[in-house]
Amino acid sequence: MEINFRHEINGQKVITAIAQDWKTGQILMVANMNKDALQKTIETGKAHYWSTSRNSQWLKGESSGHTQEVKEILVDCDMDAVVLKVKQNGAACHEGYFSCFFRKLNTKNIENFNEEDLETILEKVFNPDDVY
Amino acid sequence: MEINFRHEINGQKVITAIAQDWKTGQILMVANMNKDALQKTIETGKAHYWSTSRNSQWLKGESSGHTQEVKEILVDCDMDAVVLKVKQNGAACHEGYFSCFFRKLNTKNIENFNEEDLETILEKVFNPDDVY
Repeated sequence: MEINFRHEINGQKVITAIAQDWKTGQILMVANMNKDALQKTIETGKAHYWSTSRNSQWLKGESSGHTQEVKEILVDCDMDAVVLKVKQNGAACHEGYFSCFFRKLNTKNIENFNEEDLETILEKVFNPDDVY
Repeated sequence: MEINFRHEINGQKVITAIAQDWKTGQILMVANMNKDALQKTIETGKAHYWSTSRNSQWLKGESSGHTQEVKEILVDCDMDAVVLKVKQNGAACHEGYFSCFFRKLNTKNIENFNEEDLETILEKVFNPDDVY
């Protein structure tokens, strides 16, 4: 059997990887993984991703210390996406929130909305200036 | 403010959309949305996606009746991914499972694994032969 690294971004074949808190089910972030990143994640038990903007592998928490301990990996029907059930150390988001999905979209028109249509629903866990 | 439809797949600019059960937090599926699909989702309250393989917009549940009623939309820090908190009618997966993530990956080597390394963790909700 084979994982289907079918999404090609900047010449790199990747799958979609969603990190989810293993206890609460909160979705923390979504990123990409190439084959090496998935293998490294399995071997080390720490989430590794492929950065499509920097074109390099990336250990989550490398600079911040906010690593993700992988408890379980789920794979989808098409074998082109995984859910990582993780214990998140610190916080997942570089903006200081536990999850990257810290805002609710309240607009009715996607072409035209402003700051007030984005409702912040989480509290900051850390100050990014202190960490990066 | 603007949603950042920055992922270009087959010439279509999309964001990543994760559907999550609004009550249990179970992740149901991951797909893509272009601007029209997101706008249609907001307007109708039913999840619409962009199929990158068929190059067309797609109302989830169009043929199966297994629609997703969108209760809340969360947006991530980069504004290039959303979480849809949904009430899933029927089941999300065309293979008959409530979630597309119905298998656990137990292999230690991504290059070489077999059926036994995939553990089915959900029960089928419907028989695909009866629906499609």
